[in-house]
Amino acid sequence: MKLAGVRLPGDDTVHVARLDGDAVLVVTDVARFWADARGWTAKAAQLQGVGVPAGSVSFAPPVPPSARVVCVGLNYRAHAAEGSFEVPAHPTLFGRWTASLSVGGVPAPVPSGEAGLDWEGEVAAYVAEPLRDADAETAEAAVLGYSTFNDLTARRAQKLTTQWTLGKNGDRSGPMGPIVTADEVGGLRDGLSVRTRVNGTTVQDGNTRDMIFGVGEVLSLISRTFTLNPGDVIATGTPDGVGYVRTPPWLLQPGDVVEVEIDRLGTLRTPIA
Amino acid sequence: MKLAGVRLPGDDTVHVARLDGDAVLVVTDVARFWADARGWTAKAAQLQGVGVPAGSVSFAPPVPPSARVVCVGLNYRAHAAEGSFEVPAHPTLFGRWTASLSVGGVPAPVPSGEAGLDWEGEVAAYVAEPLRDADAETAEAAVLGYSTFNDLTARRAQKLTTQWTLGKNGDRSGPMGPIVTADEVGGLRDGLSVRTRVNGTTVQDGNTRDMIFGVGEVLSLISRTFTLNPGDVIATGTPDGVGYVRTPPWLLQPGDVVEVEIDRLGTLRTPIA
Repeated sequence: MKLAGVRLPGDDTVHVARLDGDAVLVVTDVARFWADARGWTAKAAQLQGVGVPAGSVSFAPPVPPSARVVCVGLNYRAHAAEGSFEVPAHPTLFGRWTASLSVGGVPAPVPSGEAGLDWEGEVAAYVAEPLRDADAETAEAAVLGYSTFNDLTARRAQKLTTQWTLGKNGDRSGPMGPIVTADEVGGLRDGLSVRTRVNGTTVQDGNTRDMIFGVGEVLSLISRTFTLNPGDVIATGTPDGVGYVRTPPWLLQPGDVVEVEIDRLGTLRTPIA
Repeated sequence: MKLAGVRLPGDDTVHVARLDGDAVLVVTDVARFWADARGWTAKAAQLQGVGVPAGSVSFAPPVPPSARVVCVGLNYRAHAAEGSFEVPAHPTLFGRWTASLSVGGVPAPVPSGEAGLDWEGEVAAYVAEPLRDADAETAEAAVLGYSTFNDLTARRAQKLTTQWTLGKNGDRSGPMGPIVTADEVGGLRDGLSVRTRVNGTTVQDGNTRDMIFGVGEVLSLISRTFTLNPGDVIATGTPDGVGYVRTPPWLLQPGDVVEVEIDRLGTLRTPIA
């Protein structure tokens, strides 16, 4: 089942909705949904009716404003190597605020002072249950589902100091696709192909089986420092093939279109503005 | 004028309220407040009536769940030196999610696996107006007011990798005092004494005149990468005297009480649990 965030005409509230072909069946508002994500997901599966045409709603990230988007840097050996980083002993975690999130089709602007935006296609995982001091198995079982994600990066700002936060929070720089429930995805270790294309040219071609830290391990580690809440998101890291390490560097320019295509999760398309 | 976040009995909504001695005068809910922070602040100053007793409400951070709390690391030369960091050329920025925020009097737990929590007393600044590609003067003029803040830190988690995010987001690890409007504070460069005490012993005794980057400079820099929204918060950095660099290290243990006292902003008291 696919779940997305939608706004109905004339209503600013974000609802979670089931996607059914070209139709949208509204489940409940995003706050209620995450207060009982398992229960509402079960109800969503049983929704009857034709819904409303997808073209009549606007899509929005399906997470509450308070959600933490925890991103794993350097989670693929070949990506760590291309940036001249050593393979880390622990997941390198940085944060996005929900204010940076977006959805497919929405243009992402190049911030002033940047030579362009870099692409980072990856899988995002959505937490369904509170996690505190959880082991990796429990934590992985608490994942509601996965989506495509593009961790669009302002490299100048990211590299200004030791801390990456600034360059990872540009306006509309975190587009996410619909959530595909975990039962339709399986484990990331089983291998999902992650491909990124710029104007049709493939620039990243990785596979989630090459992840250094599994999503359960990452969630478990985080849960020892803070309690993960339903609606929190883990961006699981990008494979090799980003733009800034190329000779010459290749960054996204206004007019470009970047696509992230992941097995079973679909394709996320973002124009650059 | 002092503004705080409050919840009234039986209502989960956070309202912004004016503090008037031991009384609380509710202004409006936090979402409406930040949609017109200047207008509501002017209305708050004119509120008449005796309000409700402070003892009848519970206090909460006065910011929306979507707020970004951007923290400046290493913003005092002596603090950079005590951690063996060079004086940075740009503000070192890391993020807190609002889920980590708290208020005075609320116990902060030591996360599992930590030898304790470290203190970082500092001034927080609250953004009243959207800022995009703003110069430092415009940005500083957009500050609604300031509060005490304690950037309580899980050092093990902070130092696990190059990125500090994890160790800066422990549950209830970001207590903030009431906002004192800028007209009653003046510029931070004029010098506010920042003192931190542990169980009554002074451990930090700094002054905001020693900040490397002013709040206008920091906001200006950020606004070139992402648009700052009303309700966003800047934690302006801590002076020297933190615990982990001492010989032997000194970290907060359950039962300890840490206080941050700042000229004109008051005292923020946090028990450790």
